Amino acid sequence: MRVLGVDPGLRNLGWGVIDMVGSRLSHVANGVCQSDSRDDLGARLLSLYEQLTDVVLRYAPEAAAVEATFVNKDGAGTLKLGQARGVAMLVPAKAGITVGEYAPNKVKKTVVGVGHADKGQIAHMVKLQLPGVDLAGPDAADALAIAICHAHHLQTGDQYAAALRKASA
Amino acid sequence: MRVLGVDPGLRNLGWGVIDMVGSRLSHVANGVCQSDSRDDLGARLLSLYEQLTDVVLRYAPEAAAVEATFVNKDGAGTLKLGQARGVAMLVPAKAGITVGEYAPNKVKKTVVGVGHADKGQIAHMVKLQLPGVDLAGPDAADALAIAICHAHHLQTGDQYAAALRKASA
Repeated sequence: MRVLGVDPGLRNLGWGVIDMVGSRLSHVANGVCQSDSRDDLGARLLSLYEQLTDVVLRYAPEAAAVEATFVNKDGAGTLKLGQARGVAMLVPAKAGITVGEYAPNKVKKTVVGVGHADKGQIAHMVKLQLPGVDLAGPDAADALAIAICHAHHLQTGDQYAAALRKASA
Repeated sequence: MRVLGVDPGLRNLGWGVIDMVGSRLSHVANGVCQSDSRDDLGARLLSLYEQLTDVVLRYAPEAAAVEATFVNKDGAGTLKLGQARGVAMLVPAKAGITVGEYAPNKVKKTVVGVGHADKGQIAHMVKLQLPGVDLAGPDAADALAIAICHAHHLQTGDQYAAALRKASA
């Protein structure tokens, strides 16, 4: 099964695609969709939409997951993130793929083993679990971590993850 | 010129279409796109996307504006609103329409004359400015108010509005 993970952001939207055969994971591709902060918001969201649509068409994932972030630093930042996240959820849904959601500490716990890990640790564990991967940046590493998390939960049919997805709907 | 206004929300997304001929405004249509809270988030965003795309295809607006809301009550609510707003901005952008943004108090000041007006006052002034309109609900009334605000600013080439759109990009 091919799994897409997305780490949403308005400026940098990380994505990662992995294959799962039995319990074996392998890297397919990863990258970062970017939008120009000088463009107006509609144009930026459209650009992210088109770039992520290209990824979905090119790699044809059968499952997808997006990080369920709850930022509360400032309302404006959360709104911006939400807008990018709306596009990140919409693109796979439009391709007929059910989109999973995982809280950041759930992703970290699955990939690193603890709920509070820094970006460096996440990149390290992603590299360990996907030998030979060449990371396009920290947002792409996070996106691969989300894909790994989703793959594990799809494999184990994790009840908690299913409940989490339902609760956040 | 035909103008679309959108009041974004995940459960209820209000929309309104008006025509502007010279300085005369007239009502074309208004309504509310809804998503089922029992569905998962991807499906809800897709449903809003499809409903709003139908509106754009049916009424072919040449200009569009979305309310620039900055909610700071709670991060989760702001994130949800942001996701719906992302879809609301994306749909007209995808149709090649530049999307304006207006802060709620700017919309109220334009339509009602004061920056702090309640929903009842907005509906009242929308009815006065669009004789014969049949409002689909408060979210549709707000959407028409946004369309009226955008029409006024397009007409006057308001520098402040242009700066506002640029600043919030």
